[in-house]
Amino acid sequence: MLDRNKRILIVGLGLMGGSYAMALSRQGYSVSAITLNRSDIDYALERRMIVSGSTEPDPTLIGAADIIVFALYPTVFVEWIKAHQGLFRPGTLITDVTGVKSSVVEQVQSILRDDVEYIAAHPMAGRERSGVEYSDDGVFRGANYIVTPTEKNTREAIDACCELGRVLGFSRISELSPAEHDEMIAFLSQLTHCIAVTLMTCNEREGLEKYTGDSFRDLTRISKINDVMWSELFLLNRDALLRQMDSFAEEFARFRGYLESGDREAMQKVMRDAGARRALFDKK
Amino acid sequence: MLDRNKRILIVGLGLMGGSYAMALSRQGYSVSAITLNRSDIDYALERRMIVSGSTEPDPTLIGAADIIVFALYPTVFVEWIKAHQGLFRPGTLITDVTGVKSSVVEQVQSILRDDVEYIAAHPMAGRERSGVEYSDDGVFRGANYIVTPTEKNTREAIDACCELGRVLGFSRISELSPAEHDEMIAFLSQLTHCIAVTLMTCNEREGLEKYTGDSFRDLTRISKINDVMWSELFLLNRDALLRQMDSFAEEFARFRGYLESGDREAMQKVMRDAGARRALFDKK
Repeated sequence: MLDRNKRILIVGLGLMGGSYAMALSRQGYSVSAITLNRSDIDYALERRMIVSGSTEPDPTLIGAADIIVFALYPTVFVEWIKAHQGLFRPGTLITDVTGVKSSVVEQVQSILRDDVEYIAAHPMAGRERSGVEYSDDGVFRGANYIVTPTEKNTREAIDACCELGRVLGFSRISELSPAEHDEMIAFLSQLTHCIAVTLMTCNEREGLEKYTGDSFRDLTRISKINDVMWSELFLLNRDALLRQMDSFAEEFARFRGYLESGDREAMQKVMRDAGARRALFDKK
Repeated sequence: MLDRNKRILIVGLGLMGGSYAMALSRQGYSVSAITLNRSDIDYALERRMIVSGSTEPDPTLIGAADIIVFALYPTVFVEWIKAHQGLFRPGTLITDVTGVKSSVVEQVQSILRDDVEYIAAHPMAGRERSGVEYSDDGVFRGANYIVTPTEKNTREAIDACCELGRVLGFSRISELSPAEHDEMIAFLSQLTHCIAVTLMTCNEREGLEKYTGDSFRDLTRISKINDVMWSELFLLNRDALLRQMDSFAEEFARFRGYLESGDREAMQKVMRDAGARRALFDKK
């Protein structure tokens, strides 16, 4: 178990940072936060999600932390490290929630002080909302948590990061290299967001909501997207996402061909394969 | 209100026929069923979803019905009418749950006896299952119900069909022409199923379920598809579905272009438009 006396600092108190704070405080950890808006800190203090907070990179809060979780946009995270890493106490463990890994992990590990360690992680959970007021640590239940170590990481730090995932309430903890992670996420998460957004904008007919069923609602739920964050994530993982978009488009065109030529057998086989494979993805 | 003394016969006791039977019996109607398997009738009798049933086109059951709901595959529905319409009592109201309309409505209305009326409807609700044992009339709550009259229909029959939708528990009842319905459904329902199936078959890497988040689960839930029924529905609505697949593919390629050229502004605009439009589709 992750030692209950560890002091944890969250940098960036949005939906994800807030959900981490909520889960960790509930487990008895002492959690602090640094975030831009005073109102977000007040919100979290009132609900006992944190015990202290600051809108500035407060040297006392940073120096007191054993573990610091960065829940910022990727580019902001890298800039923050450059600007304020002098304030870390030697031995601090740094982790994050960033949705792309290769570019971020390489940049941060190359500039980071030698006496602190950064072990990256990606919590595969979220909501189609942003802001600390939508925090909900229930989203971690049944969800996957991916740790992405490099050769610069120690086994000790990797294990502590996995433990953090368990304490947060994730159901399955895995390890992947940053590159494997990014290819996976391009398919499982980024491609699905591209599809949802496209589906929502490719037919402008009015009144469709009067006729829709749940399938359309399901496929477009995630189209309520944080446009600033997701466009940044897409661009940071551009090559992998383009590859996944192309392989989807190719398979989609193949299915279209079966329909056009009236190849019922071929369509049915794809449908049966899809259904069988989908069973693997049911929540346990 | 639809007269509580109306006797209703369901032909085809699968997921949808069973859910109709469940809802109507709960509302106090006398419901019978004709379906292929004795075990499905026994299942429904035990749970008081029906009061009587037969595996044959029983003249007594058919002659006693005021309203007959066909919950069969489209081609089977048309064949059934051809073979057994001699058994209808004059004045019987025929309706259905078929997922495509133009081809089915035209065929049935052109062969049907003059002294009975067929008014088509499409309940926009379902589950990623088939079989009477998955019946659930809860799926009608908050859902849309579309009646698709033609110039052959009387206002009286259209109103009765709308009333049936209300009795079943649907939240929004609309009328569309069969052609409008099919174009709409090609987009809202058939295209989404094509996408889900494609997403499930375009990446065969093993172990993806260990890393997935809810977005991929949401977009592929409906890929557990009844391959026989859906391939039939796709083929009966081929032209409309091909048009919708093409407009999706075109918009998807446009978004891919923004990503490839690094046009962050354009990506963000599409995302913002998508999110704003999606708000219309939230369940009331």
